[in-house]
Amino acid sequence: MNERDCSFCHQLQADMWPQEDLVWSFPHSVAVLGTWQFYHGYCVLIARTHARELSGLPDSIRRDYLEEMCLLARAIEQTVQPHKLNYELLGNQVPHLHWHLFPRFQDDPARLSPVWLTLDAAERDAELRQRLQTGPVPRNEVIAQLRHTLTLLDAPHA
Amino acid sequence: MNERDCSFCHQLQADMWPQEDLVWSFPHSVAVLGTWQFYHGYCVLIARTHARELSGLPDSIRRDYLEEMCLLARAIEQTVQPHKLNYELLGNQVPHLHWHLFPRFQDDPARLSPVWLTLDAAERDAELRQRLQTGPVPRNEVIAQLRHTLTLLDAPHA
Repeated sequence: MNERDCSFCHQLQADMWPQEDLVWSFPHSVAVLGTWQFYHGYCVLIARTHARELSGLPDSIRRDYLEEMCLLARAIEQTVQPHKLNYELLGNQVPHLHWHLFPRFQDDPARLSPVWLTLDAAERDAELRQRLQTGPVPRNEVIAQLRHTLTLLDAPHA
Repeated sequence: MNERDCSFCHQLQADMWPQEDLVWSFPHSVAVLGTWQFYHGYCVLIARTHARELSGLPDSIRRDYLEEMCLLARAIEQTVQPHKLNYELLGNQVPHLHWHLFPRFQDDPARLSPVWLTLDAAERDAELRQRLQTGPVPRNEVIAQLRHTLTLLDAPHA
């Protein structure tokens, strides 16, 4: 898949990412609040440059992208204080670099397992799917809290 | 969990990591060949410093650890030429920083999904478990190939 066929590139270039999901606009990436807010604070960090793999980015952009990942991770930790944070860069379905940052919580009975086992079960269970999309506070409040923390952390803004 | 109770710290400090699994000894991490060689070239990159989260590392060590991750990833890509590479930092079971680098291949019918769905199924299926542990070439050969590539990439050695 090249840039022309990439759905993430289309959305980024046309500035069509749903604005209500936008957490932060970094110089080299865009942070959006993810769907599964059972994992309260779950974000996806999409690289601005189209690349299938980290090795496809120029070194300086790759390092900056990873710094932005670490900054967003820190903001999630400070904002929602998870038991653990899970980082995943897969791209098996959409091969445009994007990090999943999933906060994990002590009261999740499945917290010893990767989130994908639960998310896979949700594909066959509408009630579970609904529950996993619903966090303890409304999405706009989580976003406001994350932005506040990122501002305190002096996160660079595009 | 602190350093004293951490199984990874014990193995690293006592230099007890199985030597036959060792791929590379980086300044800030140790790369070992993972169990599931159906994902041919799968490695785990364990930080030398005990930390539960990336944010628990001093900035310079964190950056170097991520550089070592990128170098190992590049070596895996050049050695086994996967369709896609999956990066995962979870630590839900062993909260000591370690990256899973899973190469994914075109001929894997489950390649659109995270590996954990297949690995979870293997927990209940001894035949599948056996198959997932077996790669196309012997483990010592994969390790020799990865070391050769890392040498060509001028990877730093502890």
